[in-house]
Amino acid sequence: MAAAAPPPPPTPTPEPAVALPETTPLFTRIRLAAPSDVPHIHKLIHQMAVFERLTHLFAATESSLSETLFSPTSQPFHSFTILLLEASPTPFPSPNNSNPPFFTPLTHHVPLTRPISDPDRDTFKAPDNATVVGFILFFPNYSSFLSKPGFYVEDLFVRESYRRRGFGRMLLAVVAKQAVKMGYGRVEWAVLDWNVNAIRFYEEMGADVLKEWRICRLTGEALSAYGSSD
Amino acid sequence: MAAAAPPPPPTPTPEPAVALPETTPLFTRIRLAAPSDVPHIHKLIHQMAVFERLTHLFAATESSLSETLFSPTSQPFHSFTILLLEASPTPFPSPNNSNPPFFTPLTHHVPLTRPISDPDRDTFKAPDNATVVGFILFFPNYSSFLSKPGFYVEDLFVRESYRRRGFGRMLLAVVAKQAVKMGYGRVEWAVLDWNVNAIRFYEEMGADVLKEWRICRLTGEALSAYGSSD
Repeated sequence: MAAAAPPPPPTPTPEPAVALPETTPLFTRIRLAAPSDVPHIHKLIHQMAVFERLTHLFAATESSLSETLFSPTSQPFHSFTILLLEASPTPFPSPNNSNPPFFTPLTHHVPLTRPISDPDRDTFKAPDNATVVGFILFFPNYSSFLSKPGFYVEDLFVRESYRRRGFGRMLLAVVAKQAVKMGYGRVEWAVLDWNVNAIRFYEEMGADVLKEWRICRLTGEALSAYGSSD
Repeated sequence: MAAAAPPPPPTPTPEPAVALPETTPLFTRIRLAAPSDVPHIHKLIHQMAVFERLTHLFAATESSLSETLFSPTSQPFHSFTILLLEASPTPFPSPNNSNPPFFTPLTHHVPLTRPISDPDRDTFKAPDNATVVGFILFFPNYSSFLSKPGFYVEDLFVRESYRRRGFGRMLLAVVAKQAVKMGYGRVEWAVLDWNVNAIRFYEEMGADVLKEWRICRLTGEALSAYGSSD
């Protein structure tokens, strides 16, 4: 499972590689991912698998991600949707008519209280002097009791250098805001029961943790066996 | 939450109302639900809320179900999808060209080892001498580690008179088979941790119960608050 992961427990600060000066403000942008972002998305998902110690389940390739996430008929928010979070030391250009029609990019100015050291900055380099920092992947689900759609967040990931600065909350809040805008009834996701930092973070955001429910999964050979059944 | 519910614990057999003779075979049909099925779907969801003691969460109306489940642009298996299970004492007509293009109805002949007493038979009367017996509601989800879609089963419900006869398994198996057919990687659903009969049933079907994961939910006022946030 790829999972809603933040925030992780505190980790030792890595050696500074490319540090932004302390006095430099940080600018962020949240925008819809495009097919050209797949190489970055692939690397982010792999880093998430490493973080969750689930690399044995990681089977995604750039090609399989492109095919399944960016089909010509799928429409953002009505199917699998990825929002990317980018950061830059300089302001992002204002949204204009060339932006995708479904979502106007959201920009913020974030005051930096601690400098950011990002050894992977070159790997995650993006246009507009930006660096790809994290992503949220979600899609519609449905509550029959409410008879309303909602959103299910499959992945929420922020790269290590950028954690504990509110970026996870920023991404989740954008999905919640979009749910409200569309009249949806719920936003749901899953968390590991031992990740007490994450659970506290989610509860502070107003979420309930459903203690009695367990997820069941049919996959691999057990699923394949149904392909030949009557 | 509406939930994958079968099988329930054994309950006392109700007084027979309309009994099918013991020697009569039972015929079943699984087909895609249509907008004209909404009154039956509404009643089934309400019975499910009663079974789960969650009627305080039940807010669906026929109108809200019609609007959200049968939008003109939604395509079965690519959005919210309902398969209905019907039963009849007489064989169902063979599928023909008038059937929806997305799913050819599946018919079975079920040998009855115990007679069925269905006090709600008139309420759930359907064309072709049939009675609506249960349903399964599901939609695509996505695994980024597999970079494949799957199906999430939101509801699986069989009316009380028809339980413990393999109908729940029959509905779940059809969804699993459809997932294999579409090259999907998983079928997932949720179960209450105290429903040991259901958990045993799912494990016998080959499913894993993910013991470490908890579902988080943002809903109601806690969700609405994000609508006005920056």
